[in-house]
Amino acid sequence: MLLTEAGEFGLIDRIKAVVAGSAENLVVGIDDDSAVFRTTGERLLLLTTDAFVEHVHFDFRYLSPAQLGWRALAANLSDIAAMGGEPVYAVVSLALPPQTRVEQVEAFYQGMKTLADMFGTLVVGGDTTRSPGGWLVSVSVLGEVEQECLTLRSGAKVGDALYVTGTLGGARAGLAMLQTTERESSREVHPAIEKHVKPLPRVKEARYLVQHFAVHAMIDISDGLAPEVGHICRQSGTGATILANRIPLDQATRRVARRLGDDPIHYALQG
Amino acid sequence: MLLTEAGEFGLIDRIKAVVAGSAENLVVGIDDDSAVFRTTGERLLLLTTDAFVEHVHFDFRYLSPAQLGWRALAANLSDIAAMGGEPVYAVVSLALPPQTRVEQVEAFYQGMKTLADMFGTLVVGGDTTRSPGGWLVSVSVLGEVEQECLTLRSGAKVGDALYVTGTLGGARAGLAMLQTTERESSREVHPAIEKHVKPLPRVKEARYLVQHFAVHAMIDISDGLAPEVGHICRQSGTGATILANRIPLDQATRRVARRLGDDPIHYALQG
Repeated sequence: MLLTEAGEFGLIDRIKAVVAGSAENLVVGIDDDSAVFRTTGERLLLLTTDAFVEHVHFDFRYLSPAQLGWRALAANLSDIAAMGGEPVYAVVSLALPPQTRVEQVEAFYQGMKTLADMFGTLVVGGDTTRSPGGWLVSVSVLGEVEQECLTLRSGAKVGDALYVTGTLGGARAGLAMLQTTERESSREVHPAIEKHVKPLPRVKEARYLVQHFAVHAMIDISDGLAPEVGHICRQSGTGATILANRIPLDQATRRVARRLGDDPIHYALQG
Repeated sequence: MLLTEAGEFGLIDRIKAVVAGSAENLVVGIDDDSAVFRTTGERLLLLTTDAFVEHVHFDFRYLSPAQLGWRALAANLSDIAAMGGEPVYAVVSLALPPQTRVEQVEAFYQGMKTLADMFGTLVVGGDTTRSPGGWLVSVSVLGEVEQECLTLRSGAKVGDALYVTGTLGGARAGLAMLQTTERESSREVHPAIEKHVKPLPRVKEARYLVQHFAVHAMIDISDGLAPEVGHICRQSGTGATILANRIPLDQATRRVARRLGDDPIHYALQG
């Protein structure tokens, strides 16, 4: 069977069936934003990884190497945030075409470090190698979370309310704007573009929430509200009703949608 | 400056200059086979990552998906072994071309799991995405090591003897054999081919050594004896003399070298 026929869920279920294993100290395996396990310390550890492939996830026509470094780390920090945890260490695999300039690699790491510094995360290792095609980036982050702060996808209960930590669809609107041939990037759409090129992981918001409220479930919605709420429902055995007019959208997102003739709700749902 | 002009050391030094940072709990950053840090637990944690790119690091003409899964994990386990530690958890980033079959992905994970099981390592997460070119694999492994067992590259002292845990050059000989058009794979060269397709990380050997001897320095020599001894010397401020006739070579490696008109010592030195 081709991957394209299996779909994302089919593939993940098959991978899970192969690697399935349990260990006394493993709390959550492949089922959440990060893996969760116990070591000899007080806090649980979190481990997550994300890959970014040139021409699939990004394009240097509208993302600089520094922005790529930021984004690649941001995706992983969001996964740690979604568990209620704090990111601590990052390692980076980078495969680069031979015509890459050293200055581009430095800019990539500089962008990553700027974000890492904001969250007290250290880039502690990596592997740099050749690519016969475009850039390939894979970042893995180790985080920590107190047992009582750990928040999974699977804990939602009937009657729970669904909250988001900001306005949605901005990053998608920003990308749509960057991909148009309209090169005049007016001030009004700039906030959406910023959300695409410099997304801000919700580490602080998530920490505040799990420390002050009884949050039942959390998930990173960078890939869009619709599929991610779907993950929570599937793993919690619940349903969800989302009222389109209650999805928070900001002005820049609405403006981009109007200019491109799109529905801003689609940006929010699809990420 | 182009990457190709900077060389591996130049690039790593520049990356280090950008990401440099220290934290109370960071023992070793980008300078060794794995990063080393302290958490609230008794044992130190190790984190390492390695990337494998189709047509650069492997070719499906002479490596099956299952063998690739094994090899990709093996490289990381070797990095953990080189610190004196034990591998515990692995996460995998996989970028796959659209024509990939689900069965190939299952075989990849099956190969990885077979090796993981041998060393008590669990595959706990991953990210699977699209690749516009060939397969891209990045594996990160978290390990643990007791403070007293931790062994760095930088601890070698003048007067130390250099030991290896087996015969060298086999994997390189195996690859050379696989790359020839000579398709008849005789019994005599088979052990070399096995070393290429199913390398066995030295986790148990390294653990035994650090628990029973005062080992000053260790390193993973999968990339060849010459560059890796160079790393130890550079980071320890020592030199080294290697006597060619004291490098252990096995029969299969000698046979492949003879058949292909190569010097088996080169296989050992270049990995």
